[in-house]
Amino acid sequence: MTVSTESTTDVLIIGAGPSGLAVAYWMAQYGINARIIDKRSTKIFRGHADGLRGRTLELLDSMGITQRILQEGYHAAGLKYWRPDGNGGLKRAGQLRSTIWKSSPHRMALLSQGRIERFFLDVIRDSSSIDVERGVMGESLTYDESLEHDSQAYPITIKLRTLSEEEATPIPNPGTTPYRPARDDLEDLAPKRKHNVGTIETVRAKYLIGCDGAHSWTRKQLNIPFEGSHTDHIWGVMDVVPITDFPDIRWPSSIDSPHGHLLVITRENNVVRFYVPLQEEDEISPSFDRSTVTLDMLRERVKSIMSPFSFDFKICHWWAAYQVGRRLAPAVNKGRMYLVGDAVHTHSPKIGLGMNMSIQDGFNLGWKLALVVKEMAPPSILGTYKSERHQLAKMLLEFDQKWAAFFLKQKKKQDQLELQGLPEANPEDIQAMQDVFRENEMFAEGHVSFYKASLIVDKDSTAVAKHLTAGERFPQALICKQADGQPWWTSRLLNSDGRFRLLLLVGDCRLEDQKSRILALNGGLLALQKRFTPPKQKLDSVIEVKAIHSAPLDDVELSDFPPVLRQFDETTGWDYTKVWSDSECFWDEQCKGNAYEIWGVDRSRGAMVALRPDQYIGWIGELDDVAGVTKYFEGFLHEPRPEAVL
Amino acid sequence: MTVSTESTTDVLIIGAGPSGLAVAYWMAQYGINARIIDKRSTKIFRGHADGLRGRTLELLDSMGITQRILQEGYHAAGLKYWRPDGNGGLKRAGQLRSTIWKSSPHRMALLSQGRIERFFLDVIRDSSSIDVERGVMGESLTYDESLEHDSQAYPITIKLRTLSEEEATPIPNPGTTPYRPARDDLEDLAPKRKHNVGTIETVRAKYLIGCDGAHSWTRKQLNIPFEGSHTDHIWGVMDVVPITDFPDIRWPSSIDSPHGHLLVITRENNVVRFYVPLQEEDEISPSFDRSTVTLDMLRERVKSIMSPFSFDFKICHWWAAYQVGRRLAPAVNKGRMYLVGDAVHTHSPKIGLGMNMSIQDGFNLGWKLALVVKEMAPPSILGTYKSERHQLAKMLLEFDQKWAAFFLKQKKKQDQLELQGLPEANPEDIQAMQDVFRENEMFAEGHVSFYKASLIVDKDSTAVAKHLTAGERFPQALICKQADGQPWWTSRLLNSDGRFRLLLLVGDCRLEDQKSRILALNGGLLALQKRFTPPKQKLDSVIEVKAIHSAPLDDVELSDFPPVLRQFDETTGWDYTKVWSDSECFWDEQCKGNAYEIWGVDRSRGAMVALRPDQYIGWIGELDDVAGVTKYFEGFLHEPRPEAVL
Ligand SMILES: Cc1cc2nc3c(=O)[nH]c(=O)nc-3n(C[C@H](O)[C@H](O)[C@H](O)COP(=O)(O)OP(=O)(O)OC[C@H]3O[C@@H](n4cnc5c(N)ncnc54)[C@H](O)[C@@H]3O)c2cc1C
Ligand SMILES: Cc1cc2nc3c(=O)[nH]c(=O)nc-3n(C[C@H](O)[C@H](O)[C@H](O)COP(=O)(O)OP(=O)(O)OC[C@H]3O[C@@H](n4cnc5c(N)ncnc54)[C@H](O)[C@@H]3O)c2cc1C
Repeated sequence: MTVSTESTTDVLIIGAGPSGLAVAYWMAQYGINARIIDKRSTKIFRGHADGLRGRTLELLDSMGITQRILQEGYHAAGLKYWRPDGNGGLKRAGQLRSTIWKSSPHRMALLSQGRIERFFLDVIRDSSSIDVERGVMGESLTYDESLEHDSQAYPITIKLRTLSEEEATPIPNPGTTPYRPARDDLEDLAPKRKHNVGTIETVRAKYLIGCDGAHSWTRKQLNIPFEGSHTDHIWGVMDVVPITDFPDIRWPSSIDSPHGHLLVITRENNVVRFYVPLQEEDEISPSFDRSTVTLDMLRERVKSIMSPFSFDFKICHWWAAYQVGRRLAPAVNKGRMYLVGDAVHTHSPKIGLGMNMSIQDGFNLGWKLALVVKEMAPPSILGTYKSERHQLAKMLLEFDQKWAAFFLKQKKKQDQLELQGLPEANPEDIQAMQDVFRENEMFAEGHVSFYKASLIVDKDSTAVAKHLTAGERFPQALICKQADGQPWWTSRLLNSDGRFRLLLLVGDCRLEDQKSRILALNGGLLALQKRFTPPKQKLDSVIEVKAIHSAPLDDVELSDFPPVLRQFDETTGWDYTKVWSDSECFWDEQCKGNAYEIWGVDRSRGAMVALRPDQYIGWIGELDDVAGVTKYFEGFLHEPRPEAVL
Repeated sequence: MTVSTESTTDVLIIGAGPSGLAVAYWMAQYGINARIIDKRSTKIFRGHADGLRGRTLELLDSMGITQRILQEGYHAAGLKYWRPDGNGGLKRAGQLRSTIWKSSPHRMALLSQGRIERFFLDVIRDSSSIDVERGVMGESLTYDESLEHDSQAYPITIKLRTLSEEEATPIPNPGTTPYRPARDDLEDLAPKRKHNVGTIETVRAKYLIGCDGAHSWTRKQLNIPFEGSHTDHIWGVMDVVPITDFPDIRWPSSIDSPHGHLLVITRENNVVRFYVPLQEEDEISPSFDRSTVTLDMLRERVKSIMSPFSFDFKICHWWAAYQVGRRLAPAVNKGRMYLVGDAVHTHSPKIGLGMNMSIQDGFNLGWKLALVVKEMAPPSILGTYKSERHQLAKMLLEFDQKWAAFFLKQKKKQDQLELQGLPEANPEDIQAMQDVFRENEMFAEGHVSFYKASLIVDKDSTAVAKHLTAGERFPQALICKQADGQPWWTSRLLNSDGRFRLLLLVGDCRLEDQKSRILALNGGLLALQKRFTPPKQKLDSVIEVKAIHSAPLDDVELSDFPPVLRQFDETTGWDYTKVWSDSECFWDEQCKGNAYEIWGVDRSRGAMVALRPDQYIGWIGELDDVAGVTKYFEGFLHEPRPEAVL
């Protein structure tokens, strides 16, 4: 017997992979009435993606997650290449070194996707009652376009079915070793179902977010095509504890041998991931049937590629034959139904960006959606989700293609050489590879995003901050809290709590001139905050103002700053978190007092920067340009009705 | 009706405060059959101690806990003094800066004791099935001396009673604000009892460890006196969110005003702790009845001391009138029954060392006890618990006395001055305070310990390591793992897993001479490991050998090192964790390649150091002195019978 129930929700998220969890994170932060479902009966514990790039780590830091990743994961900073030595063997032919650590404390980290999902689930639970409902799937989806422009209406109707254990359990994990989950994963080994098996729940929603991966059910329902390559790459992937005398087994390595190509990725503890291409993309007709791939087949391939070094393993935590094409959905939404992450774009695992793009997609859409649902901003800001993320997805696929084409070219050249005898690595080829890497590093790390001018990105920039660009991330620096001297990375202090931030780079606040400029800001900024803050909320709950001065900590008193920078609360007193100093910290040598230089801002005169809740730069201007920044916010923030009573 | 049950355990720990948890940590690491009970129905959530010193953080790092403390806590690096300004007001008179960060990455952290207990409970649960049994108390204790020398016997008989909720619940927490526990504390809000209320369990134990605090029931059972001061200090302590315009409210501060003395301790989030002395120790007759102290009394005292600055609060998380004398138990054990932590020593909270000493006591005793229970070492090593920790407790009390006397003198001087009008701070007095502080800083931070020569500390040192001293902690440095380049602090890599460590500071392993020296070590060290490893265990499970060379990472191959440094396991392959490099790391500027300089070891020729499981230095010698180090281990390690079959 099928039981039926009915309910409404403001936001329904389908799929609790990295992208769905990133959207859910924002729903939790903004206190949105939202739900997130997943067809699988449990979270992921083993396998899947494992690479987190610089920008992803920065935003995870703003969520309070990164320190857990750094503690558990492997920190990567380079890649070693191994090439034929001309005598049938292999030799180290070069090393690619990331230079990212110079512009961010966060370099690549490698850790199982299951752990990353763990950390997301924890922060979501810490701040809300939202939790993933598992073993639940959409059955049908209808959309009433006539309701689209009524913000209070529920144009989406979706029937959700609670699956049986069988339906909800994916093909058993093919690892050969029994899984010993981390203690904090135990409670999620067998999550409770909300409804009994077979229950059909009809949910009416204001917004639907499809985060259901490459084979997205939602995308199919929306009739959005998935365009791209005709054949798929097939990669064998395995997470094993290798038994080998290969010297760089604990360094990320790229091995090209006469027997094929291999990507070796160092991971937490003693795990190493091997990526073995089984079908390259120039192969028009399928050379492999994925279902015929076995773990022993992968073992043998790695053995022959790694020879003359020995290779074997007894422990395998996970393996898969991973089949993926380079595909892109031309649209990211239909009315109020959106697609995020792998549902929009897929590409080869070679560039290790899928999880990063997916998290960043969800991170980009989530806060905008929350503002719209709370009627703090017009639905039109949701258009920037496409203009910002879809072009990046395109670039991602181009990068993937370029990278793959480069390797194909190399491979052909090598095949050619092999016909003439035992080939040796060519330094020029190595250089060529380094060049491709360097050219794309900033993009791959997510340190450039090319977000276009829009409602929420004002590109009419001045020259006051030479190294800041509206539409890009705010570059990280280590600065000290004025009130207590604690050195914090900006990624941590500009935490993702849903607020816009106005950074007053107030310059040298010891100078009399500068002092007056700072004091003169107070009225205008308070007025700005008042206009956009709903009644009964704290003045800094929509737009927070923070100051970073360039004077030494000890030369400055917090009381020098105007009230907007140390708001008073009857219960908790003054706010001590708003004034920061770009100066050296006597007990932390990493804290150099060089933030102004990083940002290209004059240490005396300063500048003003508006940051979006995702820490992307929305607006840059002179320190006094209250009118300018007010105009920026007027462009997309509603004034609450009735006006704030404060 | 009273139900009775009977059982045996190898180790019974009474009291699950910091010292009991530190002992339990080791029991978990060594897989000892141990139990830990506490009379309280729950763990601590609020209040109590909050200061963790450098050495404590180092050892917590070796347990994998420190990163959680750093994320949640406030990091202290100094103290500001406020003194009368001569006009009835207060002025900043100086700042005391810790210099500890130069010799350790770990400087003082401030965080509620409840969180620290949380982290202990987590690591204990991660590695064992030991868990605190709450609401249980000893009723009677008997000891059969005739069994003392039989290692298999249970000379201790203790009757444990399961308490009613009423008996087990301490006087309600006097905080004025409802407590919102951290999510990871939720499961411990109402722990399950093992037995029904009233059950009497008769436990026979091989060892009993009394960690039951200043009013130790165990100490009383053992008839060990608690000697020391006749009158107690009484301190008012409160954890509040202050509403004040005092400029340094977010810096640890010491305020001396004509109205009294105040210690202000910055804490996590926006909490500040205030220590208000209510009865100084020169007062012979009690000036305060602790039970008459109220929160409002403390509020008023702080108000007057802080004036002319304003002070008040609405949120109080915890407060107490803390009564403590300077006392020391002359003995730390009776047969196989030991006392640890506050059960042995108490002192004023002014120097903030109680929790640190208690953790370090438990940390000192725990591994020795485990070795004895496992019959890997003779019971005589337990004697070093007293010789090492009791003299430190004495020094602690002397330091406390010196510190207190200094303040009393200052106070008297000040009282004198006040008779003559409004006093002003005297720079000489400030300097005198700085001198006392500096003189004792290394001791207070736990960076010097003065452990004497003993079975486990061989002081017949050579000059090969100028800055290392047997019986002291191993100084921290940041070094790189040869296999994967990860930079780790020694406090993390020398983790507290119960093993002894032989550090081969192999010097410059590129030199041919040095290479031969290293290779020549292999046989002797393998023989050493074999002698002391029980059958069927991994060769490195009792004594682990690690090498730290002084050459650049890229100039060295792991395969250059002999088998003792990369032991092979049939399931997991080679061990990649044993060889480290003291060289710069291109992506971590803190990693400077200066470890050899820190240790005072010649970069070419190296040295050898044996570390105890608690990372204290047991022996120092020439790199080749296998005979010497073998003799060191022969001094206290049993050879397993039957001999290791490997
Ligand atoms: C072997 C492998 C290696 C990879 N390596 C990397 C890497 O190194 N770096 C990197 O960045 N990326 C990597 N990726 C890609 C990465 O895993 C994906 O890009 C990323 O997980 C996409 O996130 P997502 O949330 O969009 O989709 P997914 O992670 O696929 O999550 C989709 C979720 O939706 C659920 N779902 C699906 N259909 C429905 C439905 N109808 N109803 C309800 N729920 C549904 C699924 O159960 C799943 O939990 C790898 C992927 C694989 C498989
Ligand atoms: C207000 C305050 C401030 C302090 N500030 C600091 C500071 O800043 N820094 C610092 O280092 N130290 C400080 N201390 C001291 C510190 O709390 C103690 O030194 C430390 O907790 C001692 O640890 P312990 O495990 O030996 O004893 P305790 O923490 O007292 O633990 C004893 C445990 O035994 C249990 N117990 C008691 N009797 C029995 C029994 N008969 N049967 C079973 N269980 C029993 C108790 O319930 C308790 O859990 C402070 C203490 C207080 C109260």
